[in-house]
Amino acid sequence: MEPLSIIDILGTFSFACSGAFAAMNKRFDPVGVIIIAFVTAIGGGTLRDVLIGQFPVSWLTNGTTITVILIAAFVTLFGGRYLRKLPKTLFVFDALGLGLFTIYGIEIGMQSGFNMGLCITLGTISACFGGVIRDVLLNTIPLIFRKEIYAMTCVAGGLVYFALLQTNMDLEWIQFLCILLIVGIRLIVVKKRLQIPIFYAKNQNQH
Amino acid sequence: MEPLSIIDILGTFSFACSGAFAAMNKRFDPVGVIIIAFVTAIGGGTLRDVLIGQFPVSWLTNGTTITVILIAAFVTLFGGRYLRKLPKTLFVFDALGLGLFTIYGIEIGMQSGFNMGLCITLGTISACFGGVIRDVLLNTIPLIFRKEIYAMTCVAGGLVYFALLQTNMDLEWIQFLCILLIVGIRLIVVKKRLQIPIFYAKNQNQH
Amino acid sequence: MEPLSIIDILGTFSFACSGAFAAMNKRFDPVGVIIIAFVTAIGGGTLRDVLIGQFPVSWLTNGTTITVILIAAFVTLFGGRYLRKLPKTLFVFDALGLGLFTIYGIEIGMQSGFNMGLCITLGTISACFGGVIRDVLLNTIPLIFRKEIYAMTCVAGGLVYFALLQTNMDLEWIQFLCILLIVGIRLIVVKKRLQIPIFYAKNQNQH
Repeated sequence: MEPLSIIDILGTFSFACSGAFAAMNKRFDPVGVIIIAFVTAIGGGTLRDVLIGQFPVSWLTNGTTITVILIAAFVTLFGGRYLRKLPKTLFVFDALGLGLFTIYGIEIGMQSGFNMGLCITLGTISACFGGVIRDVLLNTIPLIFRKEIYAMTCVAGGLVYFALLQTNMDLEWIQFLCILLIVGIRLIVVKKRLQIPIFYAKNQNQH
Repeated sequence: MEPLSIIDILGTFSFACSGAFAAMNKRFDPVGVIIIAFVTAIGGGTLRDVLIGQFPVSWLTNGTTITVILIAAFVTLFGGRYLRKLPKTLFVFDALGLGLFTIYGIEIGMQSGFNMGLCITLGTISACFGGVIRDVLLNTIPLIFRKEIYAMTCVAGGLVYFALLQTNMDLEWIQFLCILLIVGIRLIVVKKRLQIPIFYAKNQNQH
Repeated sequence: MEPLSIIDILGTFSFACSGAFAAMNKRFDPVGVIIIAFVTAIGGGTLRDVLIGQFPVSWLTNGTTITVILIAAFVTLFGGRYLRKLPKTLFVFDALGLGLFTIYGIEIGMQSGFNMGLCITLGTISACFGGVIRDVLLNTIPLIFRKEIYAMTCVAGGLVYFALLQTNMDLEWIQFLCILLIVGIRLIVVKKRLQIPIFYAKNQNQH
């Protein structure tokens, strides 16, 4: 298994957990929790695939995505009490997913021949849209519109990615550094604010 | 006309009615009612077509879908007072649509060569997503996340479908039995709770 | 540059401004404002492209759309105080965009060989869906469902377009007249109600 595949699975797992937690906070039933976990994990990649015309969308063409999401949802459902005490662990995974999906989306865009601006847009959509659709389904204003660090971090990571492509650095190192950068920015921003990431907060409603 | 086409039209008609009723409960104007009816009836099949890359999506390639939806919307708009007294009739149609669209979505998935898990997922999306998008547009938390019977019924019907495919039973009988099973489960669950299906209730809001 | 391209850019610019204003009214941060401006401007055309299977979707294949949207968002962000005093100016642009996108969507539909009913549906989706997705993301009931003039204006303009196609009139004149008709209807309806268009109102929430 390639290194990227492992991080991809971790990212999918983390996003699925974040969706499951958000749904449990809203007191959804187990089926609702699984559906929200699923939508959060696959939303961004699916929209990216649809926009560029990659069909069937990626989670339909590999066997592991749905399995990983189901495991993540069940772990959160049954182990939630334990994981709730470890929001930082989850946040690290989520940030990792954000980093990986941004870079992955950018590379898919480059393979399709898009320019830098569009590639970064596609990467940001890949990383952020799962959370947007999660919040829409939970009937809250998507947090991406309230906390600029989320989308801006992806854009920053993407810009650094293209800057490093101009150097002689190995692609693997560029990928690794940019993912690390996005994860690092997220960690610093959240730590500075002395709060766990907003999407785990209890009161997400606008009222 | 094939038997399946007749049930398909009935399913489209029923989902369109359910959307129109929900929009009328929210005091939408007639144009809004027609749009919600349209979106509820075509939402699931459209998402399924998009995910697997079937273009143009189905309602753009057959002449009857839009006509059926318009008839359903106008019947509900002008005959609503009468139909309101017949929620059970509407519910039977909706359950029938749920059954048909689940099986139809599964068969489309099989034609595209997907495995059992993905086929059942596609069938469930076909049957449920119209209601999800209806509720999102009505600014309520989709009922599918609150009432697990909805999605679980589709999954159960799909599992029985694949089990029966292992037998020598005729395909028509398998389709008929699985649709009947989904409709039956829905009827029993709703009857047991002694209430009309939740999407006709007046207070759908989360507040 | 063709005349249509100029109007297209103006329409994109106007829809982006309307989205940015709506997001600023909801006190979104600048990144959120840009994202809402983007989604409002490209939403309708993207859904139309996806439904008919035109990939990559149009804003990914031309270089100007994203640039125009970014300019519109920054102009609104930094010049908002000035523009707020000119809601009528913005409304004229929005109505122009509505007219142009309706006719443009209809012509895309005709190129793909769809009948009149489907073409008008595609044109209406092109013109209206950006606003629908904007309102969904802002967690309000889409205004299209509350103010029937919006969608009905597109349908009326589309019907006149097809009626005029039966005459010997030049296509450019037909396009111009139908866009003018849609803009005119919107202007008259809004003036008659003695209020600025509802999507600029401060209290868009349903509560």
